[in-house]
Amino acid sequence: MAAEMSGGDLSRLRQLNALSVIKVLQGQPSLTLTEVAKRTGLSRASTEDVVRELLQKGWVAEAGATAGGVGRPARRYRFRADAGRVLGVDIGGHKIRAVIADLDGNVQHAARVTVTPAMGRLERLEAVDRAVAESLEGAGLTGGDVWASGVGTTGLVDGAGRVMLSEALPEWTGVDLAAHVRRLAPAPVLVENDSKLAALAECWRGVARYAKDMVFLLAGLRTGAGLVIDGKLHKGFGNASGEIGALPVLGWIRAQEHLSGEAGDVFAAAREGDKAALAAVRRYVKDLALGASALVLTLDPQMVVVGGGFSRSADVLIEPLRRELDRWCIRTPEVRMSALGDEAVVLGAVRLALDDVEERLLDGRSPLVSGL
Amino acid sequence: MAAEMSGGDLSRLRQLNALSVIKVLQGQPSLTLTEVAKRTGLSRASTEDVVRELLQKGWVAEAGATAGGVGRPARRYRFRADAGRVLGVDIGGHKIRAVIADLDGNVQHAARVTVTPAMGRLERLEAVDRAVAESLEGAGLTGGDVWASGVGTTGLVDGAGRVMLSEALPEWTGVDLAAHVRRLAPAPVLVENDSKLAALAECWRGVARYAKDMVFLLAGLRTGAGLVIDGKLHKGFGNASGEIGALPVLGWIRAQEHLSGEAGDVFAAAREGDKAALAAVRRYVKDLALGASALVLTLDPQMVVVGGGFSRSADVLIEPLRRELDRWCIRTPEVRMSALGDEAVVLGAVRLALDDVEERLLDGRSPLVSGL
Repeated sequence: MAAEMSGGDLSRLRQLNALSVIKVLQGQPSLTLTEVAKRTGLSRASTEDVVRELLQKGWVAEAGATAGGVGRPARRYRFRADAGRVLGVDIGGHKIRAVIADLDGNVQHAARVTVTPAMGRLERLEAVDRAVAESLEGAGLTGGDVWASGVGTTGLVDGAGRVMLSEALPEWTGVDLAAHVRRLAPAPVLVENDSKLAALAECWRGVARYAKDMVFLLAGLRTGAGLVIDGKLHKGFGNASGEIGALPVLGWIRAQEHLSGEAGDVFAAAREGDKAALAAVRRYVKDLALGASALVLTLDPQMVVVGGGFSRSADVLIEPLRRELDRWCIRTPEVRMSALGDEAVVLGAVRLALDDVEERLLDGRSPLVSGL
Repeated sequence: MAAEMSGGDLSRLRQLNALSVIKVLQGQPSLTLTEVAKRTGLSRASTEDVVRELLQKGWVAEAGATAGGVGRPARRYRFRADAGRVLGVDIGGHKIRAVIADLDGNVQHAARVTVTPAMGRLERLEAVDRAVAESLEGAGLTGGDVWASGVGTTGLVDGAGRVMLSEALPEWTGVDLAAHVRRLAPAPVLVENDSKLAALAECWRGVARYAKDMVFLLAGLRTGAGLVIDGKLHKGFGNASGEIGALPVLGWIRAQEHLSGEAGDVFAAAREGDKAALAAVRRYVKDLALGASALVLTLDPQMVVVGGGFSRSADVLIEPLRRELDRWCIRTPEVRMSALGDEAVVLGAVRLALDDVEERLLDGRSPLVSGL
């Protein structure tokens, strides 16, 4: 039974169907039309329609046929993860990372350039240029091959990809990162705060894959947060969500001061039972937990994920943190340490770029950005 | 051009179309099929299909026909807001409210029973029974005529309609409100925390109608919060969102202590320039703003709406509150006083019940709950 629908209904439906076919093909070596129809719940005719369109647009390719029980072998189709590439960039105080990934999000080449927190704007942007150039070269590509770029940075970012406010990096407030990266790869550039991107990565490929509501804590030389609500990154009306550190009573401003000197040394000493080090870690965790409790009491999330540089010291951090959260929260969520570590932000940047590519598919636009 | 679709695709699409036709008819006296098709974007044939089904189910009725320019007059259709009724109940420390509303959410009859915070469980439930009975009687209905009930209460509520924790009311923890109200009206009963329902009401009929992200502050003898994120009430994983009051450093536990005696008197004295009263209001606002800033910094909402008993004193509250929020927040959202006042919670309860009725429509179930 087929209902008559207007052109608008239909084209939206086709786009949704196209995306569900792609989602089904992603992560599978290949599928037959029958298998695609079964997994998407679409009719055979709709499936044929959608696959034909995706073949034309280059998102899907024919894979080798397999012999069926009787008759001619069924044609198989695969998602062309290699049809396009995205660029992910993480601009931090100590390192710049750039990666090239395929449309499944698998990293093809990763580059890393060492910087220092004291570096000025121009020097840091030059390091970005080098990291991006190295990642492109390593993958055998040029900037024109990139379908979309995602960029993570410390500080607050506006909707146009400009840094609105950065206290951690000198001369960083006001940098137009979108424009800068667009000069290296002319595809659309999405820029986002690093804690937000790490949150996105944890829900995509990290320990929060099955959590719809999640608070990500960046625990390191800076303390920050990223929120995923109802499966979506919560940016906030002015892109300034998760900024609980601005409230002095919640302790994040002073948190890392307790770990005087090299934080890594303090954690190592605490691990060996050094009393002064244990007390310092306890004071740090108390402050970290105060701000984290404000986030948890506000949102009542399913999970808290701790990432950032200090997440390497999970063994001495996680139990005290759980205890402190228990002290303040009405319902203490599951607390997990990030398994992505230093890669979280750049992976989140890749996810941000892939989201943009998929949105263009939904809009019916070609994934290839030609002539930009 | 019509695409072939599977039965599953189609029935979901029909339900979405039915809901969009109802949304278009709601709030209009009546529309012709041509008008419905134009406003929904559906084809003429789909519109006819959907309207026929809604006529059969009793959601839509024919209205008088209007003469067109030439030919026979076009038939007009109207949403049957009077086809069903929902019950809304607000169980507070000082008052129990019960209202009967039609499917547009217009209140048909409202009842109010005075109670005291010290009353025990049985006495308070008895007052609920009286308020519900009075509202039904006033509307000329019996419990069997109710399509769904929404109930608001202080305290934390679980997903099954039981009070998990109430510190404000004696013997209230553990009360199974859903079961109790179902005895009065056998339709589905939804129970929710009162601040959450007030937030819902503000986004539906209050000052936050155009805000997608909103924080509602209950400012009164108790302080509480309700959150609307991306247009939806954010309940939290364990239905415990917005409970920032649990964190002592955020000031909500002590906030109302500054208004010793009758808060209304303090506000009145402050209004007349009494210095001690002004200082007391200032201390109250400082504590209210501390917790509110934690919510705002977490979510970066578009708007903060202040409701509850104290919102009657907007003239002495709102400017100091704005100033305090400015002090702590990175981006101070628009601050508005509730225009719904004491009616917010019971209106939110009506909205909750209507949401349930609409969900049943989407599921393809009949709105009438027969034989329950």
